Amino acid sequence: MPRYRLDIEYDGGAYAGWQRQSGQHTVQAAIEQAILAFCRETVTLRGAGRTDAGVHATGQVAHVDLSKDWPDDTVRDAINAHLQLAGERVAITLAAQAADDFDARFSATARHYLYRVVNRRAPLALERGHAWWVSRRLDAAAMQAAARLLLGRHDFTTFRSVQCQANSPLRTLDRFDVEQTGDIIEIRASARSFLHNQVRSMVGSLKRVGEGAWTPADMRAALDARDRRACGPVAPPDGLYLVAVEYGSE
Amino acid sequence: MPRYRLDIEYDGGAYAGWQRQSGQHTVQAAIEQAILAFCRETVTLRGAGRTDAGVHATGQVAHVDLSKDWPDDTVRDAINAHLQLAGERVAITLAAQAADDFDARFSATARHYLYRVVNRRAPLALERGHAWWVSRRLDAAAMQAAARLLLGRHDFTTFRSVQCQANSPLRTLDRFDVEQTGDIIEIRASARSFLHNQVRSMVGSLKRVGEGAWTPADMRAALDARDRRACGPVAPPDGLYLVAVEYGSE
Repeated sequence: MPRYRLDIEYDGGAYAGWQRQSGQHTVQAAIEQAILAFCRETVTLRGAGRTDAGVHATGQVAHVDLSKDWPDDTVRDAINAHLQLAGERVAITLAAQAADDFDARFSATARHYLYRVVNRRAPLALERGHAWWVSRRLDAAAMQAAARLLLGRHDFTTFRSVQCQANSPLRTLDRFDVEQTGDIIEIRASARSFLHNQVRSMVGSLKRVGEGAWTPADMRAALDARDRRACGPVAPPDGLYLVAVEYGSE
Repeated sequence: MPRYRLDIEYDGGAYAGWQRQSGQHTVQAAIEQAILAFCRETVTLRGAGRTDAGVHATGQVAHVDLSKDWPDDTVRDAINAHLQLAGERVAITLAAQAADDFDARFSATARHYLYRVVNRRAPLALERGHAWWVSRRLDAAAMQAAARLLLGRHDFTTFRSVQCQANSPLRTLDRFDVEQTGDIIEIRASARSFLHNQVRSMVGSLKRVGEGAWTPADMRAALDARDRRACGPVAPPDGLYLVAVEYGSE
């Protein structure tokens, strides 16, 4: 059975997250439904990142096995046609036949997230649901100083949802950058893998630094506490995007 | 009566255009309603650009006279609070007391529009309604060559809606640029003023050049025809943004 890699964009605001759950409208289920409509096969997609309700993606990756050897572009266009017919806010940006041992989740060597904050007095009109609106002035330089203190390999228990099912709280944070351009603050986080709610927990804590409630050193103290209660309020899903998944050599 | 300048952002997809029309949900009416709720005054807003249904703005400008001398930030925050309560997709990004002879429409010395095209096979998920999806590969360099041929002072009858009420079809196009970054083609148009549907008519014709149906010289021939029937299919409103209005010295 040929295996296909699918690169996927979606507006998370329309979904109860990536993962199929009975009675819920999820991205995985929407694509599986479109594949059923396209080639009459009941499949299970495996995604690289199980994004939560409201979290967006411009570069989610999944794999799926189909029984027939379709041209790549046919797979992409046919799934998209059925997604469009069903009114889904999901698009397959690329379909490509992959090696039999390619696993979108376990072969991934890096996941890249972007978190967008709009920092201004006026509420969002055009970007509602697509960024976190913070009306109080944030100090992006202090946020950047705090972000650097989380880089490297640590026990991220503080920044992990109590529902997280990973065996270990140890993760290696390779990138955590804060960049301000006018009213926009973009936070980029990269790691081989993340714990459940890790990015939103770290961003919510960074906001505490940005508004002056925490110093950068408080951020490091929160990490060192290895205690979920030391985390700042978790940032909303609206601003979070899974932008890319890497499959490099080690 | 103090006059206020308002800078306005809106998601045009939710509105039947800028201008108040009985029985229609318009941006002007939404703001006038919010002002009524805020200070119990029935006012008439004058906007710099009467954008059509579906057209967005990040930098629309309007003026309004209020009977009381409110602090600028109170005007902005109070109107925004009432817009939010009413669930409107409109935000006042700036309110500033202006000279009595400031007229958002007639004092404007330049209007700047951006038109966003996403040129890729996959339909839009995140940007649906916020860009024009063109699946056939466009030649942005040919579009840029054609765009240059429209610069300057011309009779733009070809690129003017038959409903246009301007006295003269003569306009001076100061900027008309095509820039490609990956899948995104951004077209920027600036002029002191535009005819009704002029930007969307020019962009729709540029697309004909981009897909190879027209040469750049055909674009110039269309202009010279001074005939609405020579225009390409008008581009949809989804991709169009009024981004700024200038009030400079002459």
